[in-house]
Amino acid sequence: MNDIEKKSKTSGASDISEILKNSLNKVDEEIINRLNKSTPLIADIGKHLINASGKRLRPLLTLTMAAQLNDYSMNPIKLAAAVEFIHTATLLHDDVVDESELRRGGKTANIIWGNEASVLAGDFLFAQSFQLMVETKSLEALSVLAGASCKITEGEFQQMQIANKPDTSRIEYFEVIGKKTAELFGASAQSGVIIANGTIKQQKAAYDYGFHLGLAFQIIDDIMDYLTEPNIMGKNIGDDFKLGKTTLPIILAWENSDAREKEFWIRTLQKLEQKELDFENALNIIKKYNIIEQCKNIAETFIDTSICALEFFPETKFKKPLLDLANQSLNRKK
Amino acid sequence: MNDIEKKSKTSGASDISEILKNSLNKVDEEIINRLNKSTPLIADIGKHLINASGKRLRPLLTLTMAAQLNDYSMNPIKLAAAVEFIHTATLLHDDVVDESELRRGGKTANIIWGNEASVLAGDFLFAQSFQLMVETKSLEALSVLAGASCKITEGEFQQMQIANKPDTSRIEYFEVIGKKTAELFGASAQSGVIIANGTIKQQKAAYDYGFHLGLAFQIIDDIMDYLTEPNIMGKNIGDDFKLGKTTLPIILAWENSDAREKEFWIRTLQKLEQKELDFENALNIIKKYNIIEQCKNIAETFIDTSICALEFFPETKFKKPLLDLANQSLNRKK
Repeated sequence: MNDIEKKSKTSGASDISEILKNSLNKVDEEIINRLNKSTPLIADIGKHLINASGKRLRPLLTLTMAAQLNDYSMNPIKLAAAVEFIHTATLLHDDVVDESELRRGGKTANIIWGNEASVLAGDFLFAQSFQLMVETKSLEALSVLAGASCKITEGEFQQMQIANKPDTSRIEYFEVIGKKTAELFGASAQSGVIIANGTIKQQKAAYDYGFHLGLAFQIIDDIMDYLTEPNIMGKNIGDDFKLGKTTLPIILAWENSDAREKEFWIRTLQKLEQKELDFENALNIIKKYNIIEQCKNIAETFIDTSICALEFFPETKFKKPLLDLANQSLNRKK
Repeated sequence: MNDIEKKSKTSGASDISEILKNSLNKVDEEIINRLNKSTPLIADIGKHLINASGKRLRPLLTLTMAAQLNDYSMNPIKLAAAVEFIHTATLLHDDVVDESELRRGGKTANIIWGNEASVLAGDFLFAQSFQLMVETKSLEALSVLAGASCKITEGEFQQMQIANKPDTSRIEYFEVIGKKTAELFGASAQSGVIIANGTIKQQKAAYDYGFHLGLAFQIIDDIMDYLTEPNIMGKNIGDDFKLGKTTLPIILAWENSDAREKEFWIRTLQKLEQKELDFENALNIIKKYNIIEQCKNIAETFIDTSICALEFFPETKFKKPLLDLANQSLNRKK
């Protein structure tokens, strides 16, 4: 048994994380290369955002799905870069739409470079993502990711329409976050299977895994805005409240509230007539009805569905990181 | 000779315009169908813009190029709809970036529905355009149009960078309008040849035809902002001046100006310190040096190049509309 064989027998787990880390590094290289080929301002804005969000969650889905089907070629790397570009483009446009000033503790691009540059840089990243996809020559992956891109904007529109409506139904909320967040998670995973020539069943399983992970991810994200314990997410706590955003904590709080509390939600979130200590009062109602716990339970059921979907894949060493990713997403701090 | 044969012998020209008109109607149907499948607000915004810009110039390039190579299938229709979607998406984002209030005499979408909705609707149209392209199964057409989309945003960025710089060189200006306008004209024409299985030579000729037509088109557009004679373009005359936009009339006026006039341009366009009658004075300088005539001459040389490129195509009845389109673009009023 030579050294390499020994290593692969004895330290499977670290090997895998090494392989995925290497692939993610290649994704970052691809991203930086593409940005450097554009104009200096686009490159600056792109790098600012790419550096700010460190997780590369969506690319990781693409890469891991392709890796467990033995595709370590440049194709999954390019698709993973494309997926991150789509995500980054939506972040840029989101921050313009929301007039956000902070993202992950840093200033947003619209604050540093202005709305114009943010809109255009988002457009560039979006166009560039399609160029990357074209290079993989997979019309099927292109179709899935173009579809997800449409859904994202539909979801953002629907999100605008449920804003300032604390009496929104759960079903409507799940539809919104399904489109605006979970579809891209699903498509990222599915495209990894497509490019690695997986079966239709595996494609569906990958989509289901990613989609439900995305739902849970968004719920945890929404919770963060109402957490009293310290978190390092870098969002301004209470931002969603200030804007009257309709997220799961609000919907569940509304469902649980008595008439007087409902009046409070209508004044603060619907009419946006907010005064001092309103946010503290909101937190008190949320605590009173155990809303955070209720939200986490719902996120957990989505994670369960996500994990079930993994059964359709062969037992390879890449299954564990996918399981871990699902389980960790419930306890993430950023 | 039966009736149909008679008709095709005697009224060739009107037949052709009938064929193209029918195809354009199918493009409009395709566009409306796609919009109706999205959310009501996206559909409204999309239709507002699609109805406002009536020319369908870019789709016409795709359709005519495909038709002269005998492709009347749904593929060119879908590509033509995709091209119009890309164009419309850039208009929506442009108006947000420029904070425009009027386009072709009507209110802009950002004024009616707000910046948020305009940004998102643009994103939707862009994503939808790629779905249409995927349906044609032509990776080559996808590649060309994705490339053009990247160039458009690069061009918009470079346009931002030459703003308020009346001493910009012609070369730099041509690079900007090449990217932001002419590339999509070129790609629209080229993709029509690609989908109809034309040769590489024909692809290049179509691109050259479209690209140079696009350059001329943008110059005529830039002139409109400084025309004293009434025009029906629906732009607010003097808007470019107010914003200090660097367009060909300004670049040529700067080249011709004496020291005192250059001071005027620096104050009004660079420092944006504008007062009453400044626009009238600008028009006077432009008249003094025959700038509009000079601009038209430059546009004409581009049209000549455009027409030369048509030589690489067979002598079909579709050549005349392409020739006409080029010639008419110099005298367009909107």
